[in-house]
Amino acid sequence: MLLDGKLVSTKILEKIKDKVNKLEKKPHLAVVLVGNDAASQIYVRNKKKTAESLGIKSTVIELSEDTSEDVVLENIKKLNNDEDVSGILVQMPLPKHINKEKIICAIDPKKDVDCFTPENVGKLAIGMKPYFYPVTPQGVLLLLDYYKVPIEGKHAVVIGRSNIVGKPMAQMLLQRNATVTICHSKTENLEDIIKAADIIISAAGKKVVRCKMVKNKAVFVDVGISRDTNGKLTGDLNWELDFNNFDEVVSYFGRVSPVPGGVGPMTIASLMLNTIRTIESNECLELL
Amino acid sequence: MLLDGKLVSTKILEKIKDKVNKLEKKPHLAVVLVGNDAASQIYVRNKKKTAESLGIKSTVIELSEDTSEDVVLENIKKLNNDEDVSGILVQMPLPKHINKEKIICAIDPKKDVDCFTPENVGKLAIGMKPYFYPVTPQGVLLLLDYYKVPIEGKHAVVIGRSNIVGKPMAQMLLQRNATVTICHSKTENLEDIIKAADIIISAAGKKVVRCKMVKNKAVFVDVGISRDTNGKLTGDLNWELDFNNFDEVVSYFGRVSPVPGGVGPMTIASLMLNTIRTIESNECLELL
Repeated sequence: MLLDGKLVSTKILEKIKDKVNKLEKKPHLAVVLVGNDAASQIYVRNKKKTAESLGIKSTVIELSEDTSEDVVLENIKKLNNDEDVSGILVQMPLPKHINKEKIICAIDPKKDVDCFTPENVGKLAIGMKPYFYPVTPQGVLLLLDYYKVPIEGKHAVVIGRSNIVGKPMAQMLLQRNATVTICHSKTENLEDIIKAADIIISAAGKKVVRCKMVKNKAVFVDVGISRDTNGKLTGDLNWELDFNNFDEVVSYFGRVSPVPGGVGPMTIASLMLNTIRTIESNECLELL
Repeated sequence: MLLDGKLVSTKILEKIKDKVNKLEKKPHLAVVLVGNDAASQIYVRNKKKTAESLGIKSTVIELSEDTSEDVVLENIKKLNNDEDVSGILVQMPLPKHINKEKIICAIDPKKDVDCFTPENVGKLAIGMKPYFYPVTPQGVLLLLDYYKVPIEGKHAVVIGRSNIVGKPMAQMLLQRNATVTICHSKTENLEDIIKAADIIISAAGKKVVRCKMVKNKAVFVDVGISRDTNGKLTGDLNWELDFNNFDEVVSYFGRVSPVPGGVGPMTIASLMLNTIRTIESNECLELL
């Protein structure tokens, strides 16, 4: 069966819209964009558009490629102190002359909607409540929960160990009582490990998995996004090697998410959820 | 071959002693002990004794079982502000009426020699340099490194997911480019997972592993400590089921650490290393 991120994200966004409607003070998401990266500009535009369609205020601070680190830090400080701003997001990647770690550490953890700061990451790791949950992993769990995929006790394999997806995904799966394996570019026996998995979350950004490597009826969540030689968006699953069409893929797996239309829209819904999230309540994972 | 923690820790302690000797301002470890837990009292006494034998100043603040949370917090604040104190350690467990998370968050991350604070845990998780590395996992890695056990690309299985051992151990193994699996009480297929491991770090505190579950010539590091029915100290490895004496165990494994005499003494050496550690340099893992 399909894990339909488009469907589930639409439902989440509708609920968020209702909620925002009832709020007297509207949430306000500030996005800092440094430089001219084309993909980043599209991502930021989409975030702004989605926020506004839900009644969430949004401000984009666009800084030129040659902006100094100090100026970026000053902008973050201003947003930290601006009581109207409820969420701050610094779009990655940053230009090379800017120290990413310094920028991340400057964000007020209470406004860190991406869950990038050490304080929020650390709280997540030791089982304390962070101010926000990491966006993509939260989106994946919302998708799995919608389809009632059992997680506790299952062997979940995460491919990739980025700070944005792989590592926080592993933490959140562990919190849900999965047995978790993290694989990456140095993994020596990826095929054996994939074969043993009940749930696979693939965030390699390369076509590293083919269907026949995976146990029949396993759950496969594709977080990878890249473009094939024809410029078409594809995920980490190289399904064309084993099947003729995606329907066959869907019936091979217990559950599988497509690219596009899977984790992509869930990620943006998850960000919006963080943006309206009140710090006190832990409703982010229980909204559905 | 044996992973001899007694031998390796002695070598580390000698080096620390030399180093402390040359320091003009001696490091100063402050330990906060609340209540009358017998095991905690022994641990604290050993830490103090070891510190002093190396020329490290040590202060133990003993507070009675019924001390209020506020008083504990005040004591930590005082230690944070005391320029002579370079390391603060709050002995766990705390009495039930005290909120452990509040206490941990009150420790200045720059003096958090246990690496318990969200800031240090978060930095470790996202690959930034924490002020200190977590004590037991650092001790395990120092032991493996002394015996030149290869880690990169290997499949390491960590049994247990505590904040003190399992979770930070997984993070540090991942940083060393191992493929890492974390198992725990909810894991459904522990035997299959153990069988696939090249390196096993067991911190269950129960006799959950027998030798014949493990691949021949794998590496087994026993972090568990419990007492058997005769009151004898034992680890997580139930080796008596498969072998007559520990020499046979040693030749079955590629490497194996005993209990006692394995990770126990490494943990205290690792704590001393943190206590003398200067924040700027990253020498803790390169001392040997």
